[in-house]
Amino acid sequence: MKDINKVVLAYSGGLDTSVIAKWLEDTYQCDVVTFTADLGQGEEVEPARAKAEALGIKEIYIDDLREEFVRDFVFPMFRANTVYEGEYLLGTSIARPLIAKRLVEIANETGADAISHGATGKGNDQVRFELGAYALKPGIQVIAPWRDWDLSSRESLLDYCHKHDIPVETQKGKSPYSMDANLLHISYEGGLLEDPWAEPEDDMWRWSVAPEQAPDTPTYLELDYQLGDIVAIDGQAMTPAEVLTFLNKVGGANGIGRTDIVENRYVGMKSRGCYETPGGTIMLRAHRAIESITLDREVAHLKDELMPRYAKLIYNGYWWSPERKLMQDMIDASQVNVNGKVRLKLYKGGVTVVGRQSVESLFDQTIATFEDDAGAYDQADAAGFIKLNALRLRIAANKGRALL
Amino acid sequence: MKDINKVVLAYSGGLDTSVIAKWLEDTYQCDVVTFTADLGQGEEVEPARAKAEALGIKEIYIDDLREEFVRDFVFPMFRANTVYEGEYLLGTSIARPLIAKRLVEIANETGADAISHGATGKGNDQVRFELGAYALKPGIQVIAPWRDWDLSSRESLLDYCHKHDIPVETQKGKSPYSMDANLLHISYEGGLLEDPWAEPEDDMWRWSVAPEQAPDTPTYLELDYQLGDIVAIDGQAMTPAEVLTFLNKVGGANGIGRTDIVENRYVGMKSRGCYETPGGTIMLRAHRAIESITLDREVAHLKDELMPRYAKLIYNGYWWSPERKLMQDMIDASQVNVNGKVRLKLYKGGVTVVGRQSVESLFDQTIATFEDDAGAYDQADAAGFIKLNALRLRIAANKGRALL
Amino acid sequence: MKDINKVVLAYSGGLDTSVIAKWLEDTYQCDVVTFTADLGQGEEVEPARAKAEALGIKEIYIDDLREEFVRDFVFPMFRANTVYEGEYLLGTSIARPLIAKRLVEIANETGADAISHGATGKGNDQVRFELGAYALKPGIQVIAPWRDWDLSSRESLLDYCHKHDIPVETQKGKSPYSMDANLLHISYEGGLLEDPWAEPEDDMWRWSVAPEQAPDTPTYLELDYQLGDIVAIDGQAMTPAEVLTFLNKVGGANGIGRTDIVENRYVGMKSRGCYETPGGTIMLRAHRAIESITLDREVAHLKDELMPRYAKLIYNGYWWSPERKLMQDMIDASQVNVNGKVRLKLYKGGVTVVGRQSVESLFDQTIATFEDDAGAYDQADAAGFIKLNALRLRIAANKGRALL
Amino acid sequence: MKDINKVVLAYSGGLDTSVIAKWLEDTYQCDVVTFTADLGQGEEVEPARAKAEALGIKEIYIDDLREEFVRDFVFPMFRANTVYEGEYLLGTSIARPLIAKRLVEIANETGADAISHGATGKGNDQVRFELGAYALKPGIQVIAPWRDWDLSSRESLLDYCHKHDIPVETQKGKSPYSMDANLLHISYEGGLLEDPWAEPEDDMWRWSVAPEQAPDTPTYLELDYQLGDIVAIDGQAMTPAEVLTFLNKVGGANGIGRTDIVENRYVGMKSRGCYETPGGTIMLRAHRAIESITLDREVAHLKDELMPRYAKLIYNGYWWSPERKLMQDMIDASQVNVNGKVRLKLYKGGVTVVGRQSVESLFDQTIATFEDDAGAYDQADAAGFIKLNALRLRIAANKGRALL
Repeated sequence: MKDINKVVLAYSGGLDTSVIAKWLEDTYQCDVVTFTADLGQGEEVEPARAKAEALGIKEIYIDDLREEFVRDFVFPMFRANTVYEGEYLLGTSIARPLIAKRLVEIANETGADAISHGATGKGNDQVRFELGAYALKPGIQVIAPWRDWDLSSRESLLDYCHKHDIPVETQKGKSPYSMDANLLHISYEGGLLEDPWAEPEDDMWRWSVAPEQAPDTPTYLELDYQLGDIVAIDGQAMTPAEVLTFLNKVGGANGIGRTDIVENRYVGMKSRGCYETPGGTIMLRAHRAIESITLDREVAHLKDELMPRYAKLIYNGYWWSPERKLMQDMIDASQVNVNGKVRLKLYKGGVTVVGRQSVESLFDQTIATFEDDAGAYDQADAAGFIKLNALRLRIAANKGRALL
Repeated sequence: MKDINKVVLAYSGGLDTSVIAKWLEDTYQCDVVTFTADLGQGEEVEPARAKAEALGIKEIYIDDLREEFVRDFVFPMFRANTVYEGEYLLGTSIARPLIAKRLVEIANETGADAISHGATGKGNDQVRFELGAYALKPGIQVIAPWRDWDLSSRESLLDYCHKHDIPVETQKGKSPYSMDANLLHISYEGGLLEDPWAEPEDDMWRWSVAPEQAPDTPTYLELDYQLGDIVAIDGQAMTPAEVLTFLNKVGGANGIGRTDIVENRYVGMKSRGCYETPGGTIMLRAHRAIESITLDREVAHLKDELMPRYAKLIYNGYWWSPERKLMQDMIDASQVNVNGKVRLKLYKGGVTVVGRQSVESLFDQTIATFEDDAGAYDQADAAGFIKLNALRLRIAANKGRALL
Repeated sequence: MKDINKVVLAYSGGLDTSVIAKWLEDTYQCDVVTFTADLGQGEEVEPARAKAEALGIKEIYIDDLREEFVRDFVFPMFRANTVYEGEYLLGTSIARPLIAKRLVEIANETGADAISHGATGKGNDQVRFELGAYALKPGIQVIAPWRDWDLSSRESLLDYCHKHDIPVETQKGKSPYSMDANLLHISYEGGLLEDPWAEPEDDMWRWSVAPEQAPDTPTYLELDYQLGDIVAIDGQAMTPAEVLTFLNKVGGANGIGRTDIVENRYVGMKSRGCYETPGGTIMLRAHRAIESITLDREVAHLKDELMPRYAKLIYNGYWWSPERKLMQDMIDASQVNVNGKVRLKLYKGGVTVVGRQSVESLFDQTIATFEDDAGAYDQADAAGFIKLNALRLRIAANKGRALL
Repeated sequence: MKDINKVVLAYSGGLDTSVIAKWLEDTYQCDVVTFTADLGQGEEVEPARAKAEALGIKEIYIDDLREEFVRDFVFPMFRANTVYEGEYLLGTSIARPLIAKRLVEIANETGADAISHGATGKGNDQVRFELGAYALKPGIQVIAPWRDWDLSSRESLLDYCHKHDIPVETQKGKSPYSMDANLLHISYEGGLLEDPWAEPEDDMWRWSVAPEQAPDTPTYLELDYQLGDIVAIDGQAMTPAEVLTFLNKVGGANGIGRTDIVENRYVGMKSRGCYETPGGTIMLRAHRAIESITLDREVAHLKDELMPRYAKLIYNGYWWSPERKLMQDMIDASQVNVNGKVRLKLYKGGVTVVGRQSVESLFDQTIATFEDDAGAYDQADAAGFIKLNALRLRIAANKGRALL
């Protein structure tokens, strides 16, 4: 048994983390500090205060982290056009390092020697929380009750509540899914989804209408980019969190951003997840569009080749690592000319780019034109270009090397 | 001036390549062999025979290459989930190496010492044709009239026709766009599209209905995969070309597959292109889905990291190269277990995966479950996993290295 | 405590694994099967039989694996020009998967349900043994006594021997270093080397003379390659193990192959190691030389870019993984033309390539020559080649983008 | 014929560029500005002034660029441990971008509208000069006489000199090799080397003694690193050019840095080159050593995986490109902790690292030790680490997927 004096707990106010708060006190005879964050999950965080107080907690932190979350985590990630395994926009993954950072900061402020969280021993979130905590405060202790205790069933949890006077709200209409939400997405796992052949039920989805229910007329948007980030929509300047909030709303209303995938967890298993990421889906497509006219080709290709690796770092929990930082510096540096405007059409689940413009555009109509280019490009140059690029292939063919 | 005896011309039957046929004869005093391929572009190829005959061509090749095209080029490319610059499904790029191969084969059969094509000196297609030809027949001569002649305007072309008795059909309703089509896609460039801010007009698109015009009820499909390729749809066995033809039809009817992008050409400029790729859009998503349950994680990630490079090879015209062949061998080897079934929902432009199953599935419900897993996975293992992965981060942090 | 019936132990005959054999019997009340391999470590393996018998072992396996080791592990690895972290030739790493494979095979033959080894909990070898065993026999149990028992000091080990009548030989002149040897290398860790600033003492090295003691005249060698592997030396056909044995001898005599590095272990720490790899050092340089004239440029570059990843797989213990297998297939396929002859000069620690030739050579003197090339290469082509490669750079510069 | 007013010529003072100066004047009726740089090639540059004056040149630039060359080009490249195709230290490649930059600067100062150089149309140097010039001054004209004129033999050159009164010095003992030299290396091509099987003659090499002639006692050096660059040797602070000059001297005296390779040129052919890079050979090994204790593992691996691509950029002439700049930023950022000291032994062609130390060292003896580590590392953690890393392999094996 570790010797713990005070522990900072990532506390949602729900049943599980309430039990954990009590269990930590009992087990370690230590003080518990609760930390509850508003990351845009769409539920009030203030009620967590009363619940924590009811558990006898003395030090209660409740933070609105929405702007920091989008500005310092979501936006930087989107600068890389980040997608994990071709489909997943990393909505859960990208929130964890911010929580890890705050847990450590609060531990420093309160003199706590440990942190704790409610993630299970099977998932990626434990890894993300703990790698972050260790990286930022190497001497920290970590307590992951789900890996340690014997309260492995719902019954034993309820028993524990009963025994320790933890109030259990009757949760009518409780979702059968394990969910996680923040400004970037809401996720669903478990229940019926554990069968990868089963189609999710319509009433699972919470943030977006079904494409079938979306408006019959398209919505057009104009996004303004500066240094790779959206700074205004339809001419209206917005903060990062405002941008994402707005795009979630308009995207969700148009049935945009539902994904249903089987992904590979860092701990070694495959798992099925469904995600709603309305704003993120729009941002990914739009960012590629603004980059398409403002980025140099080789820079764009370098970014594309490194992206899967960067996505894996974030998915696996290495946001707080020197290699992520180094890649981020490069990604950020690539965005210096990613300024301009993208016009989008949203319609029944689809996002279509219909225009892009920039004073920094590298699209040169005088060269690209099918019409007379007045000598901007000498077509004869192409012959030499092709001949030298073909040289090694011809030498090999002359040597009898077969490609067919 | 090169000394040419006989040249094989990639001949569409249209005005440009008819002029080229004549110009080649005149300029080089050589025989011209025409080659016209049905790649599924949706127009009859047989009329090209009469047009070639009218030009006095003696050796006329007209081939139906649809099955070969899909089986040996499109399907292998989709095994890699290939996308160029995040958006482009390489519909034009993947047809060129097949044409190059046939040009060379026909040159060998007819004793021709040169090939010719109607691609301009500004585009990628000249590169793809010529690299392929040089790689397969290193001593071949290549004539690219658009790079050489002085018929640079439409007027001079028409003059040439008039002077040489080449019949010019009045082309009512001729598209203002430069187009290319085959079973994988139809592309549009030029005209209004030369302004990247301009939205394409509705009547440009030819293969798909607008999402707004698509049916109000979704269409469901079940695709059967063997070794990474679709072999049956809704239980009906199909050849490769049948698969793509069917998916184009059902995809197009559901408004699927329109893309509007600015891409980076190999010759160094950016260009705007619009593409309709209904079947390809469906295949990309479905293939990722069947791989998601049948591929090992690290194999999937290796494929993802190499994909941009493989896409670039195809885009740039290096299909017939040892490096593409080597990568293809690896990609193909990765597909040995990519067998099973994917269920899709198509609706107004959107493709959603709603189920996937395989006897080779690596998704293990007994391990992944949120319920009791009967000891299939020991959560305590995660603690050591995290601790050792964190070790280097902790050592660095203890040394005072800052990540914030 | 796991329930074990029979365990196969990787047994060297030394003190540590003798104690382990006894401890396994005592602790698990199970049968122990010993497995001792000749991998070319330079010590007799037959004495291990008597020692095992003295411990009461009933099932004793002693295998000469030298040919299999070089043919199926060392040679395939050298086809990739594999080096970990720029310096380490993976001598220890590459032997572990063969031992893991034999442990599993013997477990299958003897009906054992577990394997065991003498590697510590701090090193890479435990990972390599165990990942291999799990990959080849997923239900196997693994016992790693150094992670479990409390015999953590030499005194407690000797006490244990005394208590259990295990004969302890007085080891005069015992090396202060932890060593591992096989046909590819001998390694040294620990002792004085734990200070990275300390230079190893002269008498540490066992396989090579110091360059200062090497002959004053150089030795020349001619190596014949087929499919990327050495098949003859100085005209003398040799088996893989004969090749490596010979090169170790002549390399060691010329002071070749000493390395002194700090490397990054998979378990998260840095460690200092010294290695003697005489034959491997020669093979790496020679293989690059034969590839330099027989491999296509882009294939060579693809191999170079993937090599660090392949090296990491082997170092980290993933020889028995689908991703290593896939990469190996590609590497092996690249070697189909890697045939020919390399001439080397060995002198006082240095290996210099002084000639290479091949009937499959892509070196084309008629093109490369500084003399008149009779039109084999048209220098004017270079202008177009450069102009088009420069196009994107010029467009960007015209837009005012600064590179300085 | 281009319309040229004034051209800046990269002028060595030798026969070829003297003829070029005259030919440019004659052919274009333009003014010629000569530019001669001291890059440490080991010959006086001042004599070029008199030769240029003798040709009637009015504007003559002679620059000592040695410090700029090493500080801004060589050192940044070595931060990446850059090697092309496993062997070549890029001695020629890295000097070209500096010359291109100066040509452009001088063109700007003198109002010239063109640059010219003496590189042939078969080599890489034309590409490097011209890509650099186009990237830095997109409207510049480039004249590459070797691609344009008809003076293709030595005889025609001498004829030209005779006709135009260009003094031809009798060059006794002129090397039969084409050579290039700067502070980083001297290179040899052509002549006997055009046969890749031929061993270079002893008297070809100019900068280093043969290992056989090197001193019989080793030389020890201590190099001090700051931010990845050497700032002092044996306690003596030095500028970048002093460092390289010193290392060339001591390295050459010890027979270090000879390489003999066949490399792949960007223009598509293979060529044989011999190189002497005494200082660079020492720096590569030493830099890896200081990084081995100061770089994080994943950062080091990221650098290793990107290095071949970065090397290719430099080799192919893309120093002045946004992608090189981006990679450089990342490489430079990685060096922030690469501070400390490396101890080396030089002996008859060999460079051995015998010690490395740093206050920023991540080598943690308390963890790495084979002795009791007082709980710094919990060996039990390794079990979970291995189990979870093995999970995907076990699931696949349970599914019957074979690795053997």
